[in-house]
Amino acid sequence: MSDNLSLTQLANALGAELRLAPGVDADYVISGLSTLQDAGPEQLTFLANPNYRRFLKTTSAGAVLVTAEFVEETPVSALCVDNPYLAFARASALFNTAPTIEAGIHPSAVVHPDAEVASSASIAAGAVIEAFAKIGPRASVGANCFVGEGSTLGEGSCLYAGAILHHGCQVGRDVIIHSHAVIGTDGFGFALHQREWIKIYQLGGVQVGDEVEIGANTCVDRGALGDTVIGRGVKIDNLVQIAHNVQIGDYSAIAACTGIAGSAVIGKHCALGGSSRIAGHVTIADGCQVTANTFVTKSIDKPGIYSGALPFADSQSWRRNAVRFGQLDKVARRVKDLEKQLKALSLDRDK
Amino acid sequence: MSDNLSLTQLANALGAELRLAPGVDADYVISGLSTLQDAGPEQLTFLANPNYRRFLKTTSAGAVLVTAEFVEETPVSALCVDNPYLAFARASALFNTAPTIEAGIHPSAVVHPDAEVASSASIAAGAVIEAFAKIGPRASVGANCFVGEGSTLGEGSCLYAGAILHHGCQVGRDVIIHSHAVIGTDGFGFALHQREWIKIYQLGGVQVGDEVEIGANTCVDRGALGDTVIGRGVKIDNLVQIAHNVQIGDYSAIAACTGIAGSAVIGKHCALGGSSRIAGHVTIADGCQVTANTFVTKSIDKPGIYSGALPFADSQSWRRNAVRFGQLDKVARRVKDLEKQLKALSLDRDK
Amino acid sequence: MSDNLSLTQLANALGAELRLAPGVDADYVISGLSTLQDAGPEQLTFLANPNYRRFLKTTSAGAVLVTAEFVEETPVSALCVDNPYLAFARASALFNTAPTIEAGIHPSAVVHPDAEVASSASIAAGAVIEAFAKIGPRASVGANCFVGEGSTLGEGSCLYAGAILHHGCQVGRDVIIHSHAVIGTDGFGFALHQREWIKIYQLGGVQVGDEVEIGANTCVDRGALGDTVIGRGVKIDNLVQIAHNVQIGDYSAIAACTGIAGSAVIGKHCALGGSSRIAGHVTIADGCQVTANTFVTKSIDKPGIYSGALPFADSQSWRRNAVRFGQLDKVARRVKDLEKQLKALSLDRDK
Repeated sequence: MSDNLSLTQLANALGAELRLAPGVDADYVISGLSTLQDAGPEQLTFLANPNYRRFLKTTSAGAVLVTAEFVEETPVSALCVDNPYLAFARASALFNTAPTIEAGIHPSAVVHPDAEVASSASIAAGAVIEAFAKIGPRASVGANCFVGEGSTLGEGSCLYAGAILHHGCQVGRDVIIHSHAVIGTDGFGFALHQREWIKIYQLGGVQVGDEVEIGANTCVDRGALGDTVIGRGVKIDNLVQIAHNVQIGDYSAIAACTGIAGSAVIGKHCALGGSSRIAGHVTIADGCQVTANTFVTKSIDKPGIYSGALPFADSQSWRRNAVRFGQLDKVARRVKDLEKQLKALSLDRDK
Repeated sequence: MSDNLSLTQLANALGAELRLAPGVDADYVISGLSTLQDAGPEQLTFLANPNYRRFLKTTSAGAVLVTAEFVEETPVSALCVDNPYLAFARASALFNTAPTIEAGIHPSAVVHPDAEVASSASIAAGAVIEAFAKIGPRASVGANCFVGEGSTLGEGSCLYAGAILHHGCQVGRDVIIHSHAVIGTDGFGFALHQREWIKIYQLGGVQVGDEVEIGANTCVDRGALGDTVIGRGVKIDNLVQIAHNVQIGDYSAIAACTGIAGSAVIGKHCALGGSSRIAGHVTIADGCQVTANTFVTKSIDKPGIYSGALPFADSQSWRRNAVRFGQLDKVARRVKDLEKQLKALSLDRDK
Repeated sequence: MSDNLSLTQLANALGAELRLAPGVDADYVISGLSTLQDAGPEQLTFLANPNYRRFLKTTSAGAVLVTAEFVEETPVSALCVDNPYLAFARASALFNTAPTIEAGIHPSAVVHPDAEVASSASIAAGAVIEAFAKIGPRASVGANCFVGEGSTLGEGSCLYAGAILHHGCQVGRDVIIHSHAVIGTDGFGFALHQREWIKIYQLGGVQVGDEVEIGANTCVDRGALGDTVIGRGVKIDNLVQIAHNVQIGDYSAIAACTGIAGSAVIGKHCALGGSSRIAGHVTIADGCQVTANTFVTKSIDKPGIYSGALPFADSQSWRRNAVRFGQLDKVARRVKDLEKQLKALSLDRDK
């Protein structure tokens, strides 16, 4: 809900100290957010990254969220805060442009008589809610979503259009699940029998903690036995694969296109960069950071930053080095050989 | 359909030899499956991986699937089989927790009058079935699925909620297609004309063999000319891309996040690890295993295990080596140069 | 709409010069397209890649699109053109097998009274169109699609079944958006506060230029502030991630499984190979080609071909070299050391 707020209201809402520009009134109205470069007189902006300081002097914003250090050089009204990026995040909620969602069940939604839908919840057009599902107060189920038998969507949680929550999945409060995410699809489990694959039915479910966000087209497999578990406050981007029986610790963040194989355990407060890959049954300690495009092939037992991506190059240079990579073991042996020969030669000389 | 089965019934169903624990009756009822560590007295478990043997002695399970070798040390009732993992797979079907699907067409489904739906098939709420599509006996089309014109879903096959089968796609018997998989989307084909892309309409379809499983959010492109072909018993995980005119041989398995480019031919009984990449027009022989995160850039003509992923490291060590990678060709030349100089020096000395 | 066309009609439609085979009439009817190897007498085929020349002599096609160079050796009727691949692309439109889409709003679609739908547009079963959305003339919205508040689908554009266009997204003319693509999902933005993630609401939208194609299960995030922008004629394959505030220049093509991180700027006429990765805030110059599986970690300021993928090998060889990679910095230091020693030794000798 995009809103109009006076500088005073904003200062109060964001816990900021207001320093008005000359001639500006505390009732001056702000109606949106923008960047330092693009903000107009009705917009609020922020200076969080010092690299953008050069844009401060010429900003046309109505007001700027800054730390005390930059108040003086702010040419317009300043809202002084300790952490402008955090204040910007909070302001983004005040000026959210997303349509408001109204309570009630759309007539084209199909809600099983044995499902429980809170009166303050919203069930959009074409959504299908199966038996014994529970949709909590102020929760919303978007257009053409599916909630399977016995699954729960907690208070204030939201499934965007097309999101799917299969049977036996428990989603906490204030969770956001984006479009076409699939929660509780079968894990990939088969036993070989005479060179054919025999399906292992996936009997577990998925537990999603409070305040989790799960991106569009992301998959979270149900457990084979026992549940796949996404901890509290975890944030998962788009097109991520979370395999069966993975556990993700509280407040970890996982960027887009990442794949986590079965039974991997990610600690709390971890950050996995985009396109990272975590092997099955691996454990990652709390507080680890895995940079983009890294393949974690074994457990990590202490916090730190871990990497595994090569720098690219123009194709010609790249090819030269890539060919050498295929000779690396031989080159290393030749170096060892050279060392031996040189030592022999030196000894010889010293005789 | 989760079930209650006596030990005798289980032994019969799984072809196991029953060895009752002292004081336990053959009518003792089992109602589910769990791991050796977590199973309670009403649950069946299994010992397949010898690494878990240490959990056997203290298991609280009602019964354990074991090989003859471990019967003696099983502290509870044992179901003795040749292959406990296979028996566990079969037991998982007996204790499946997925909701049962009832035959019939939901009133909110939209079935074209020229479509053919078997009377024992199930069409869930919001599903859309186009003209001349055929839905076989006991097949099921989940909520909000789409089946395009002239496509076939074979006997006993299942589209989970949101799965899409575009026009001209033939799906065999006992196939499982998970939520939001898209079968028969256009391949990526364009001709350049004056630096603009001219679309090549994709005129082929997709053939999916019997007993195939295709994961959530996976894409299988329709052929450009002729069909994309997924062989019998192939298992494909989530978020996999299968491009136009790819052929996948019978009983191959493809883990999540893998991408297979156009016209690649994968043999029978191959296994592609997660996030593997197969280049276009490449052929892979029967029986090949490609480990996770490997990019197969050219054809493989004999069975074997193939790899291409680097081990990760702490970022500091990684960076040091990654920088050296960019100098690899030069380093190799310096080694060659050293060898020459050393040879000259040695010859010199030997004069 | 698959069609029957005489050779004369085809020659006119494709701007080709017709050279009839002996005994063949200009009214000879062609009813489809196929490859040189597979085409039958009622089908048209083409020779674009000289590697396929060997199939020309034995083709059973009704006619072949060839350059002047190959007319003489074409054993059947020839349609002579400058660019057979381009002519084939144009012919593919003539023989398109996709079902035709009829204008009108399906009774099960849910169209908000404040939405504007052109009378020549098509809204399929189960589609949901929110308030103030505009669906242009001859545009089509597939089964179970969603178009959010205030979004626009331009003239002649198409959303395939299950595609989602969230609020505030503007899609141009003649755009194709494939099944389960999600346009305008939230970007991945959070501020850290006491080790918890505070959501940054994503206030921007998405602009999609004319003649764009976006693949199945691809995600295009809405901008955080300002819009994510996909230029005119851009072609994006399946399972691609386009993060918030990315800009993609006109006529660039992006193959499947690629991920582009936030605020990256891709130039015009670029081609990104499958599974390529573009880091956040990076700028790529016009006319760059990034080969498959390359991770672009920094800006590229001139056109060229860029690579970053290692060749795979049999696992044993691979492992040997991969282990050496972890010693690369040390090996390079040893080479330097050898060079020093050898120099000392040589000087010593020359004394």
